[in-house]
Amino acid sequence: MGTAASLRAKVITKPVAYEQGGVKLEGFLAYDDAKVSPEKKAPGVLVVPEWWGLDDYPKGRAEQLAKLGYVAFALDMYGAGISTTDAKKAGELARQFYGKPLMAERAQAGLDQLLATGLVDAGRVAAIGYCFGGSTVQALAYSGAPLAGIVSFHGGLIPVPADAAEKNKAKFLMCQGAMDPLVNKAAVDTFIQSMNAGKFDYQFISYAGAVHAFTNPEADKMAAANGMTGKIGYNAAADHRSWALMKSFFKEIFDQK
Amino acid sequence: MGTAASLRAKVITKPVAYEQGGVKLEGFLAYDDAKVSPEKKAPGVLVVPEWWGLDDYPKGRAEQLAKLGYVAFALDMYGAGISTTDAKKAGELARQFYGKPLMAERAQAGLDQLLATGLVDAGRVAAIGYCFGGSTVQALAYSGAPLAGIVSFHGGLIPVPADAAEKNKAKFLMCQGAMDPLVNKAAVDTFIQSMNAGKFDYQFISYAGAVHAFTNPEADKMAAANGMTGKIGYNAAADHRSWALMKSFFKEIFDQK
Repeated sequence: MGTAASLRAKVITKPVAYEQGGVKLEGFLAYDDAKVSPEKKAPGVLVVPEWWGLDDYPKGRAEQLAKLGYVAFALDMYGAGISTTDAKKAGELARQFYGKPLMAERAQAGLDQLLATGLVDAGRVAAIGYCFGGSTVQALAYSGAPLAGIVSFHGGLIPVPADAAEKNKAKFLMCQGAMDPLVNKAAVDTFIQSMNAGKFDYQFISYAGAVHAFTNPEADKMAAANGMTGKIGYNAAADHRSWALMKSFFKEIFDQK
Repeated sequence: MGTAASLRAKVITKPVAYEQGGVKLEGFLAYDDAKVSPEKKAPGVLVVPEWWGLDDYPKGRAEQLAKLGYVAFALDMYGAGISTTDAKKAGELARQFYGKPLMAERAQAGLDQLLATGLVDAGRVAAIGYCFGGSTVQALAYSGAPLAGIVSFHGGLIPVPADAAEKNKAKFLMCQGAMDPLVNKAAVDTFIQSMNAGKFDYQFISYAGAVHAFTNPEADKMAAANGMTGKIGYNAAADHRSWALMKSFFKEIFDQK
């Protein structure tokens, strides 16, 4: 049945209700049922949305990952059905988490859901995140979560906390826009110094001309609607390059020849 | 005959004598004659050695590139048969070129040899270089050479010269060791600022824990022999990651699906 099933391969997507800290959440699971089953587990990838919340963009990324053969779960940080296109509101939503244990705890609840599918090889799990979600996957790794790697796309940079170097299990791939005005040079320098001091296994790549949110095709529209033109914006070259680099990173950390 | 020929594929290597500025040079050509012929041209890759000169290391890289289907030419900067394992001598040899038009001119002579093979699709040519050779491929691009891209591995960084932004045709992939004591942070900052100001298409990646010469398996031995331990050294992870990234970059710039 193998070949015929592969030809009929299709990505299954479904909402998954769960709860953390008394907040009702709803994430988004995606996998290809011709490639993945409880008998044939696959590497898992957690997807953490931008500050806008769980809208179509992270769901689309989860579907792309499913097509690559991974079990993907786009988690919910804010609460079932809560997303916004308003930067002020997004800032308020995201601010609940920065600098607080809640950031890693809420993400861990999403990771638990990914593992609870029974479809994931628990030794081969990564987390990727965009913008606020990039910060979140850093925080999740720092908390000691069982991740082989994280990929932060235009994430806010969180320097290594005091006790994180010994807890962290993840390799870090950091994809940043070289012209990102929301993550300035001082923030980059501080982050890198802390990575070096903590002897993290990281790769940090800067993409020419890219500003914040460079992977999101909706970023220009979001920018125009929020007076953020020049601060956030799509960059096709940086998007394609960083996605290709992520795939190569996954092959390495999941030991796929 | 196609399939049978592919099965018998083998890499042809040969020395190529040429001359530049009155200096007799001898480069090293490598290609797979089952994949490449005058009727079936392939992308070409120029390889510029480290400051040690054209020893076995760059020749090995040329052979690896040939196995990937490219026509590779490891050029000679110093003169036929001149290479060294002594850092003081290497420094003297390299110093002839830094900051002088001769650096690009000598490299251009190598590029001319690559194109003169009749095996190369002239619209799809890149140059890669290591250490001193990384600097050299930057200088070659700045001179306006017809390159789709350059890859600099632990190269000394040359900030964009005054007239280079309009002459340059190449995309830049810069692979650097995050702990490289020979290319310090001030040099990196100055280089990146000049790239941004010149609106270059570049990617700049830093590899955790890697020092100078991180791609060269002989680097530890060279370090020990020259009192440079901790300054130059091999780093397998950074070597494999940067080589994979180069392959992905070539697919992009050579438009290979």
